Amino acid sequence: MIIVMKAQATEEQIQHVKEMIREMGLIDHPIKGSELTVVAAIGDDRKKDSNALEQAPGVDRVVPILAPYKMASLETQPERTLVRISDECVIGGKHIPVIAGPCSVESEAQILESAHAVRAAGAHALRGGAFKPRTNPYCFQGHGEDGLKMLAAAREATGLAIVTEVLTPSEVDVVSKYADCLQVGTRNSQNFKLLEACGKQPRPVLLKRGMAMTIDELLQAAEYILSMGNPNVILCERGIRTFENHTRNTLSLSAVPELHQRTHLPILIDPSHGTGHARLVGDMARAAVAANCDALAIEMHPDPEHAWTDGAQSVTPAALTEMMGTLKRVAEAVDRSV
Amino acid sequence: MIIVMKAQATEEQIQHVKEMIREMGLIDHPIKGSELTVVAAIGDDRKKDSNALEQAPGVDRVVPILAPYKMASLETQPERTLVRISDECVIGGKHIPVIAGPCSVESEAQILESAHAVRAAGAHALRGGAFKPRTNPYCFQGHGEDGLKMLAAAREATGLAIVTEVLTPSEVDVVSKYADCLQVGTRNSQNFKLLEACGKQPRPVLLKRGMAMTIDELLQAAEYILSMGNPNVILCERGIRTFENHTRNTLSLSAVPELHQRTHLPILIDPSHGTGHARLVGDMARAAVAANCDALAIEMHPDPEHAWTDGAQSVTPAALTEMMGTLKRVAEAVDRSV
Amino acid sequence: MIIVMKAQATEEQIQHVKEMIREMGLIDHPIKGSELTVVAAIGDDRKKDSNALEQAPGVDRVVPILAPYKMASLETQPERTLVRISDECVIGGKHIPVIAGPCSVESEAQILESAHAVRAAGAHALRGGAFKPRTNPYCFQGHGEDGLKMLAAAREATGLAIVTEVLTPSEVDVVSKYADCLQVGTRNSQNFKLLEACGKQPRPVLLKRGMAMTIDELLQAAEYILSMGNPNVILCERGIRTFENHTRNTLSLSAVPELHQRTHLPILIDPSHGTGHARLVGDMARAAVAANCDALAIEMHPDPEHAWTDGAQSVTPAALTEMMGTLKRVAEAVDRSV
Amino acid sequence: MIIVMKAQATEEQIQHVKEMIREMGLIDHPIKGSELTVVAAIGDDRKKDSNALEQAPGVDRVVPILAPYKMASLETQPERTLVRISDECVIGGKHIPVIAGPCSVESEAQILESAHAVRAAGAHALRGGAFKPRTNPYCFQGHGEDGLKMLAAAREATGLAIVTEVLTPSEVDVVSKYADCLQVGTRNSQNFKLLEACGKQPRPVLLKRGMAMTIDELLQAAEYILSMGNPNVILCERGIRTFENHTRNTLSLSAVPELHQRTHLPILIDPSHGTGHARLVGDMARAAVAANCDALAIEMHPDPEHAWTDGAQSVTPAALTEMMGTLKRVAEAVDRSV
Repeated sequence: MIIVMKAQATEEQIQHVKEMIREMGLIDHPIKGSELTVVAAIGDDRKKDSNALEQAPGVDRVVPILAPYKMASLETQPERTLVRISDECVIGGKHIPVIAGPCSVESEAQILESAHAVRAAGAHALRGGAFKPRTNPYCFQGHGEDGLKMLAAAREATGLAIVTEVLTPSEVDVVSKYADCLQVGTRNSQNFKLLEACGKQPRPVLLKRGMAMTIDELLQAAEYILSMGNPNVILCERGIRTFENHTRNTLSLSAVPELHQRTHLPILIDPSHGTGHARLVGDMARAAVAANCDALAIEMHPDPEHAWTDGAQSVTPAALTEMMGTLKRVAEAVDRSV
Repeated sequence: MIIVMKAQATEEQIQHVKEMIREMGLIDHPIKGSELTVVAAIGDDRKKDSNALEQAPGVDRVVPILAPYKMASLETQPERTLVRISDECVIGGKHIPVIAGPCSVESEAQILESAHAVRAAGAHALRGGAFKPRTNPYCFQGHGEDGLKMLAAAREATGLAIVTEVLTPSEVDVVSKYADCLQVGTRNSQNFKLLEACGKQPRPVLLKRGMAMTIDELLQAAEYILSMGNPNVILCERGIRTFENHTRNTLSLSAVPELHQRTHLPILIDPSHGTGHARLVGDMARAAVAANCDALAIEMHPDPEHAWTDGAQSVTPAALTEMMGTLKRVAEAVDRSV
Repeated sequence: MIIVMKAQATEEQIQHVKEMIREMGLIDHPIKGSELTVVAAIGDDRKKDSNALEQAPGVDRVVPILAPYKMASLETQPERTLVRISDECVIGGKHIPVIAGPCSVESEAQILESAHAVRAAGAHALRGGAFKPRTNPYCFQGHGEDGLKMLAAAREATGLAIVTEVLTPSEVDVVSKYADCLQVGTRNSQNFKLLEACGKQPRPVLLKRGMAMTIDELLQAAEYILSMGNPNVILCERGIRTFENHTRNTLSLSAVPELHQRTHLPILIDPSHGTGHARLVGDMARAAVAANCDALAIEMHPDPEHAWTDGAQSVTPAALTEMMGTLKRVAEAVDRSV
Repeated sequence: MIIVMKAQATEEQIQHVKEMIREMGLIDHPIKGSELTVVAAIGDDRKKDSNALEQAPGVDRVVPILAPYKMASLETQPERTLVRISDECVIGGKHIPVIAGPCSVESEAQILESAHAVRAAGAHALRGGAFKPRTNPYCFQGHGEDGLKMLAAAREATGLAIVTEVLTPSEVDVVSKYADCLQVGTRNSQNFKLLEACGKQPRPVLLKRGMAMTIDELLQAAEYILSMGNPNVILCERGIRTFENHTRNTLSLSAVPELHQRTHLPILIDPSHGTGHARLVGDMARAAVAANCDALAIEMHPDPEHAWTDGAQSVTPAALTEMMGTLKRVAEAVDRSV
């Protein structure tokens, strides 16, 4: 890190900062500039809480230099991570799998119909929520383990792997028992106890970016899972919260190349939550593929008008089928496949 | 809610929307305007997931009319809620208690010294974290139950009530056993399982606003706790995430009067997280009192330069003592007391 | 618009709102719901300042229903606008022109070299700033009319049409004399006097979205130009300001389909300002084409390391040439051409 | 500035960066850390466009160290600037003047009535717009010079100094002729030609922060005015644009102490635009005073329900009178006066 001193900082204050740096086990290296002095602190400060240095007299601010994550970094692991959810759904290579399905598992019939539609459209895995995080306490909260069983039945019927959300550490085991991939939702992206629990079970984890999470914080959240022993993390950009009000969130596709330049972990794009409106999903899915994402998650419902949750952003089976065709063409144009 | 039709919507499409409204158990009431038609849906739609209506052909958008919370609403309960943490720390009346203390419980000596400083400064309760949510997995995660015991010892020594954070449902019981008030942090503000668990235990809950949470979502999060049977919720504004980079967060003080006009629950301001810099805390604390907040939480550390966590935003005991004096004067100016 | 009354609003207060609506020349239509009353105001209220209604006693809020623009609306003009900058640069049809060039015109040699590189890469028009809006008053402010002459010489040499920025009404004439298309920058997107002046001259206008501008406000800014008699407006998404800090701005590609569903005006994407880093521009340009944009603006400099302005986001001639090849492939995949 | 190299940067790449730094007339100073190398560039780089350095091979990013403004800096001028608009309205000292009045000058009678109300309430200057920047081209655009004459008549009648907005360089002279202080609005905060024109005339300038402007950018905008020879700049925080939707903007009061720690220029708070709702203005005005602001601007209208513009955020004369009383009390509590 670099400690920027105030222009009027005294020699004594600079000396004090140098001592504080040494106390932290780092090497101090002051540089006197034309206007002010900065003190570089040399060494690995990533496991230190260095913002307290700002309180030392004469300090203007502390500028971190090293990225705050290690295992997730491309510098630590230069080869790309391949996450295998099933034979047809391996994320991180040339093939871009599409995970599709309804927001919620509503009934056995609905999830079965959805799974058949996903299979017919040529998508590669089934998504659907059994444990639902709902902003409104009075709304449908999911069928719980019964929902997981319905998902398992749909897998049985179609061969599609299952991706489903887990909300709390005590439910990790049951979700892990049924699912092929666990999803950590945007509201739980810094639920560190849940991240740790996901890091200790064997299934891949689809980690959604929080609504107000920076790229660095997303990689630190992934680091929680990685550092517990689970290397199979898929990062998901699903829109961030901004002043823009024509969409539910603002899908930030530049996160794809940025993350590819920082981490070896694969990046999935969720254009359904990223826009909140079915009428925008197709264009954003195509854009995501052109931006070089590694996978897509698309909300699809057999009857969006009557979906119990997230109906506005769910596409129909027909729209998904048509979308798959155009996604394949765009993928080829960037030397990938869908 | 109001369903706004597109200008070119057909009679048939309007008819279909009317039927969908009736299916939901609501009464449809179409209004033909000069440019387009809107259809009002009459009845309590707060427990319905109505955004799927957007998918009906000819619909432009769905505009909710009713607030999405009930028990938290001033319309449901016009009298203000008084939350009693201890005899000297009752929140929601004319008196504005100050809860102060370090970010983390570091040792028995440190928390004891902190508690004595809080008492000497004239503040009304002690805060300190035993279970710490850390963005970086390699940083100090708190002393856990040992930390709770140190807090209890500090209460024993000073008589100050204790406010401390809980991170996950399985730890609610142990925190509830030691603490006088449970804190739910900003990263857990939509950890609905944790909110439910807090709603089922007897201690008051200090609920922090999420970094990207709207006022409506904050009140819905409170509703989770209220609807489980715990009426003692204190809402906390602690800064939201914006483009502004001179502070860690942007403290939105207009949340105070806005919340007072929407809910009977008391509002606490946390200027420490709200700014991230000790040098801004005093002015923002005074502003919060002038804005009519009901309580304050101030991070104070006996030695901020060496604080294990959040050192940059912690004030010294001397600064707290001086601040208490000016807070009292501002409080009097708005017919309150500190 | 819809006026939402408070739950406890009296009959008299509702009556007063009805009268205010009639005073505005609109028709009032109250609807009593189960929880509260709303009053619809029927008629074209787009030219009225109706937010004062919020002040009437008993009113909770005012919800606008009609879009606040008219001429820019797809409902007013269902056929797409084609903006012709030159024979090879017509924006709004199947072909997606690429406008490329340096941020600033630095010298005759530099802009000539740039123009030849743009032509060689197969792009369709030349951009370059002669009047530069600089955040820092001490930085290079552009060569002014001399820069315009250098641009004209580059057009002479290569046949490429010229797009260049205008900063203030008094310079509209001189810029209009040399340029084929005027650019209004993001910091001037609500400089209404400039918009009016651009609306009164004959050249097409490339209107950049403000950093904090909603879609509705962008269309209202376009309306200023349209209503002055100039129908040739190209809307430009160039990134909005958010908390995200890995990019200079957050490029919001969902603006493309959203705008296409609201307006007949063509949409250009600027991935250079949208990201701020040359290393992200290619992926975002490809994503923009896949999202169905109508044109692209790419900052290219013969020697980015030594660019006087915006060097970090300028690609090299070689990178532009390679990019054009991939853009063509992506365009074909979505039935467009580049 | 500090150039952070990538971990895998070669010696040759570091050498190249050192040469580029020398080319810029700065001194290079490399520091080899445990993980990577940084190169400090010593010297005043504030007038250089250094972001192009990011393009050099092996560079990860460029970190600026010096603040990008000079004349506005507290380091350049340690004593506070006092801006004198009139005898009773001097901004920057212990007294906190209140500037009040309607958003728009609607008629001679209206502005006269307003001025008398401002005087009666005990406020210190009159605000009112003659040239109005309107988002919607079809809404009232102000009475222009006739409006300025009405303002002058109101000054004549009450002795109150006049603060009014200027929109474009060509109108600076006429506004400067009538007004005691020129206002530059939020949408023109980076209209650099207007800032320059305001810097060349003799009246004080009230510079509003842009909706998406950082503190550094605000001070650079002020620097445009200062560097043209006009030292009398008042900075105005009037709310920034965020995701928060209960207010028109998010009033960021922490800008007050932050600016006081960076600049000698006085800070005015505009709680009317900062909230957008009259019902929130009083609490935010009191909070602003407690936060140590140097002046306030309050929108007041004799009949807010019928205000032509910004009715929702205008308080009544009675509310202003009452507010002045409470502001005085809060000011005393922080050793200031109103």
